[in-house]
Amino acid sequence: MIQHGRAARATIAFVTAVALPLAAASADEGMWTFDAFPTAKMKAEYGWAPDQAWLDRARLATVRLTGGCSASFVSSSGLILTNQHCVAECLSDLSSPGNDLLAKGYVAASRTEEKQCPGQQAEIVTAIKDVTPEVKAGIGNATGEAAVKARTAAIATIEKAACPDTATTRCQVVTLYGGGQYKLYTYRKYSDVRIVWAPEDAASKFGGDPDNYNFPRYALDGSFLRAYENGRPVATPQHLKWTGREPVDGELVFVVGNPGSTQRMLTMSQFAYQREVNLPVTLAIQSELRGRLIEAIGDDAERRRQGNDTLYGIENNLKRTIGRVKALNDPAFYAGLAAREGELKAKTAGNAAIGNPWTDVDKAMVALRTIDTQRRFSQPDGELIDYALTLVRAAQERSKPNAERLPGYSDSALPLLQKQLLDPKPIAPWLEELTMRWSLSKAREYLGADHAQTKLLLGRESPEELANRLVAGTKLADPAVRKALWDGGEAAINASTDPMIVYARAIEANDRRLQKIYDEQVEGPLTSARSKLADARFAAYGDSVYPDATFSLRITYGKVGGWMENGAKVPHRTIFAGAFDRATGAEPFALAPAFLANKAKLDLKGAMDMVYATDTIGGNSGSPIIDRNLNVIGANFDRNIHGLRNDYAYDMTMARSVGTTTAAIEQALKVIYPAPALLAELKAK
Amino acid sequence: MIQHGRAARATIAFVTAVALPLAAASADEGMWTFDAFPTAKMKAEYGWAPDQAWLDRARLATVRLTGGCSASFVSSSGLILTNQHCVAECLSDLSSPGNDLLAKGYVAASRTEEKQCPGQQAEIVTAIKDVTPEVKAGIGNATGEAAVKARTAAIATIEKAACPDTATTRCQVVTLYGGGQYKLYTYRKYSDVRIVWAPEDAASKFGGDPDNYNFPRYALDGSFLRAYENGRPVATPQHLKWTGREPVDGELVFVVGNPGSTQRMLTMSQFAYQREVNLPVTLAIQSELRGRLIEAIGDDAERRRQGNDTLYGIENNLKRTIGRVKALNDPAFYAGLAAREGELKAKTAGNAAIGNPWTDVDKAMVALRTIDTQRRFSQPDGELIDYALTLVRAAQERSKPNAERLPGYSDSALPLLQKQLLDPKPIAPWLEELTMRWSLSKAREYLGADHAQTKLLLGRESPEELANRLVAGTKLADPAVRKALWDGGEAAINASTDPMIVYARAIEANDRRLQKIYDEQVEGPLTSARSKLADARFAAYGDSVYPDATFSLRITYGKVGGWMENGAKVPHRTIFAGAFDRATGAEPFALAPAFLANKAKLDLKGAMDMVYATDTIGGNSGSPIIDRNLNVIGANFDRNIHGLRNDYAYDMTMARSVGTTTAAIEQALKVIYPAPALLAELKAK
Repeated sequence: MIQHGRAARATIAFVTAVALPLAAASADEGMWTFDAFPTAKMKAEYGWAPDQAWLDRARLATVRLTGGCSASFVSSSGLILTNQHCVAECLSDLSSPGNDLLAKGYVAASRTEEKQCPGQQAEIVTAIKDVTPEVKAGIGNATGEAAVKARTAAIATIEKAACPDTATTRCQVVTLYGGGQYKLYTYRKYSDVRIVWAPEDAASKFGGDPDNYNFPRYALDGSFLRAYENGRPVATPQHLKWTGREPVDGELVFVVGNPGSTQRMLTMSQFAYQREVNLPVTLAIQSELRGRLIEAIGDDAERRRQGNDTLYGIENNLKRTIGRVKALNDPAFYAGLAAREGELKAKTAGNAAIGNPWTDVDKAMVALRTIDTQRRFSQPDGELIDYALTLVRAAQERSKPNAERLPGYSDSALPLLQKQLLDPKPIAPWLEELTMRWSLSKAREYLGADHAQTKLLLGRESPEELANRLVAGTKLADPAVRKALWDGGEAAINASTDPMIVYARAIEANDRRLQKIYDEQVEGPLTSARSKLADARFAAYGDSVYPDATFSLRITYGKVGGWMENGAKVPHRTIFAGAFDRATGAEPFALAPAFLANKAKLDLKGAMDMVYATDTIGGNSGSPIIDRNLNVIGANFDRNIHGLRNDYAYDMTMARSVGTTTAAIEQALKVIYPAPALLAELKAK
Repeated sequence: MIQHGRAARATIAFVTAVALPLAAASADEGMWTFDAFPTAKMKAEYGWAPDQAWLDRARLATVRLTGGCSASFVSSSGLILTNQHCVAECLSDLSSPGNDLLAKGYVAASRTEEKQCPGQQAEIVTAIKDVTPEVKAGIGNATGEAAVKARTAAIATIEKAACPDTATTRCQVVTLYGGGQYKLYTYRKYSDVRIVWAPEDAASKFGGDPDNYNFPRYALDGSFLRAYENGRPVATPQHLKWTGREPVDGELVFVVGNPGSTQRMLTMSQFAYQREVNLPVTLAIQSELRGRLIEAIGDDAERRRQGNDTLYGIENNLKRTIGRVKALNDPAFYAGLAAREGELKAKTAGNAAIGNPWTDVDKAMVALRTIDTQRRFSQPDGELIDYALTLVRAAQERSKPNAERLPGYSDSALPLLQKQLLDPKPIAPWLEELTMRWSLSKAREYLGADHAQTKLLLGRESPEELANRLVAGTKLADPAVRKALWDGGEAAINASTDPMIVYARAIEANDRRLQKIYDEQVEGPLTSARSKLADARFAAYGDSVYPDATFSLRITYGKVGGWMENGAKVPHRTIFAGAFDRATGAEPFALAPAFLANKAKLDLKGAMDMVYATDTIGGNSGSPIIDRNLNVIGANFDRNIHGLRNDYAYDMTMARSVGTTTAAIEQALKVIYPAPALLAELKAK
């Protein structure tokens, strides 16, 4: 779920806007919202389903981390369980030359050593309200760009009115079914989140990229954070109960969290666009970036400290992209998508209220094929240019009334934006230059050297020269400089001679122009079409339909257990001994030093990682794995390789979610990375 | 056409084995063999066609360069015109620290300064003989692996018998129509080829990767070599006539040379295999390699000297791959391929002798999908491991009778193999390590960490450790060491403790095993099916069918002229002034120093590059562009972006070949890189 920069994000931005399930959910499929839990369906399958009190408790114990992960409260003092890979960026940010906290891991000896994670915020859903009528009324009969603007205005207005206290609450209108529903989610937010405990990176990432999305797996991908407010740990009586017990093959579990995005409701012309145009470009440019970063890091320890987490994110995204390429290039799978679309069309044929939204989508895809390369490469990639563009845009947007701003700059969005912009965070100039020159050279490659946008982006400089000049010259790595520009508003931005700001000013208008075209020709028509497609699904399948993932709170359930692979059953969990068996001593199969040092003290038969048949995707990282008694028995961190198709359709046969067991984390807390106070806190009644 | 290592080669190796045109050639389409020139067709179109004397002269003046290019004799003293990019590897090999001949260009002040190019050999076709009956008789009723072995044996036997003098001749049975025809090509060969003249790399590659496969273009991609024998320039009275005249819009030209491979006759299940499986992998891994190499070179001048030509080759291949991905993902183009297959099926329906070879190909593709990842990643990539595997295999094969050896190790193939193995050639250890660790990590990624072949390739080492150990420890960079192992045969190989030889011995058997499976399940069945598909085409379209490219001698013709792009006509040639207009001063749009220094002396209105509607592909690089009077007016070096589809089907509407004019080369010889003696030699009557 770690996203790096604009070029990598373009796909995601596109797909999250388009969301409906393929057909009625079967078996344990489904990423359900908390206001539409399929109680009857689950009772029919399991003879039991959680009641409202259970659901409320699970909801209030589950945390969204704005860095892109999920998590849960596991003590009454704001202690948060998540994955190590969800705190890796924080560990990297808190490191310094010669002090690589990501590599070494982190155990806060006391609460005073718990350190704040830059940009991180914890959010808990406290209320869900249907605002579909208000938003749809706001859109009215508008079409194209006007419809997009009207929707943005309606959402900004609703969010602002609902959360007058922006210090402790956040309001967000969540678009579900691609615009079939709009729900107002109110969050209790904690914007001071601190790192408490994390294993060595070699323990959490054991097996590295080769083992990523694979199982059997031996990754200790757990960590703890703590939510603070006014300098003190927050009281969280609604936490989940911690247990170090091992998972039982076949037992029922729930995974609660914020799956990032799925694309199960795309029409065939959208799948075709992805397969034929979008994914091949993503595959090529992400692969090149991966190669660039691998060699730029090489065996330089300092660059490794600064760049390893970024590389991990790129490789993680790339593997997901490869899985999507494979899925859409599997003729049987693709035919299955077509058959489901055919079924929906057949079930709703003649329904005049629905009409034929598929042809509207087809037209929008024709427009998208024309404009998408320009959108993908409208700006270079990098933290510093992101700061600069955010500052330039925010200055312009903040001078407008709330309802007239671009999405992301409304009053309800500004507090988090400001936090992420102004929190101190180290910048590695070599990495900034690398991502900038890479993205600029890809822009030139895909647009062509003679395209007006290429000339706008590069002028007469090479990608290397431009990246070097901007990164070497800018002062935006200093949070005080960013704060002065933020506080100074448009006047300060216009007066700035910082080369990155000057550059951002020069390219920003083109981005707005492209967005306007996109909204008029693509997003506007799609908004209308998706709303009709949602109506078609409700008409055909009733409330058995769940919305596509949108990094909003969901619950999914299923049984602990492996699958059949090449005629053999994959076990439901791995044990510590397996890690020692798998270790070769060579990266990424070198065991973490603390594992080797403490082998004799470990229960080698103790559970490590587990698999279970729930419907998860990136963004669910760190989600609690909850048993029916509201005990947390693990932290979800991955899917198996078959689960890479979850983006497009969920197939229970072989797809599994992967988590680190609380049993493994307990062993680590006791023996490998000892933290007795933490253990006592977890075990407190 | 520059191929780097096994992983990059896998696609090509597969496709060159599969060759037939799509349907009857239309308009100027066609890569014709010299024994089947379409005289009647051309006369109908142009009212004129070359006679046999013309064709003989063109054939005898055209050179195949074993490095992967084409060329032509342009003086009576063995002077050879080709592209600069065809001698770039030679220039790189002849460079030394601080003396970058590729960057500086090379002008031999006298013949004593003409330096031998490692591994390079010039070959001229002196005879073509049909040996189809002999080869087919050799195959008989054999199937599967036995059929492949029988064919290999028949070819080895024919080649050996036909060329007893292996010092000056080479015999090669060329497989045409994928096995529909077998032709014995006899070559006069010159294995001492020396560099005479080449521009600065910045002049030949002006515009770099952004401008590659694009036009208007301003690349001075010409160079001269000279063929030597017994230490003296060879007499070549059959040379083409040099002219410095400019090309005329609309005039008829011929391009003669050795197109490397096309895939116009693949069946739909083969196209599907490429689109769905093969090309996405190639796209991802080539892109990663590109990124690795870009950053490993960075701004290190010495690494640039050693690695730039390799990078150029990778980027050139990658752009071609991207073009193929786009072509096969264009629904209209793909439907066109299907329609042509449907037409052929319809035309031959009920022909019992042909039967249904398409279903045989389908079955072979199912088998290929199972085995191809293992084949692609059966060995690491690199010059040193290639040396080692060649030495190990050659020792084994040379101990067998000629007819029982693997292809490539027959008596007729050994002289060139030996030359390429033993010619002195610098090795850059950092580049060797890079390509090895990249290819080993890709093997692990695509096979999986637990695959037996991954374990065979890596043992318990990481890709980085293994590559470092082998490259640091081997002595194979020393040609004397290679010669000793070659001369010592199996005993020397088995006794060697050189780590690269030890490693090659360990992995070689697996490669043979895979080849055996491939021959049994894929190549054997395809050989039979392709022969029937060839019969089907002959039955349907008669002799209007030309064979797919196989890096054997072909002739193609068409008119000089641009095409319509976005409503405007692209001019038929560029002029020197355009290069100065396009230059920004920043790489790769920085003009070569000698261009800048001599601008005042140049005729800026003089022609530079040209376009013409001939049917060419990689391997045609360096091919002479010949007018109807046997004057050479340019050196072919590229296609335009629309020509990237030439792999699968030729469409005259927008596809064009791109060449450097002799007019431009003459200006360079006079003013930019002065070589008066060379100019006099070219102008001699």
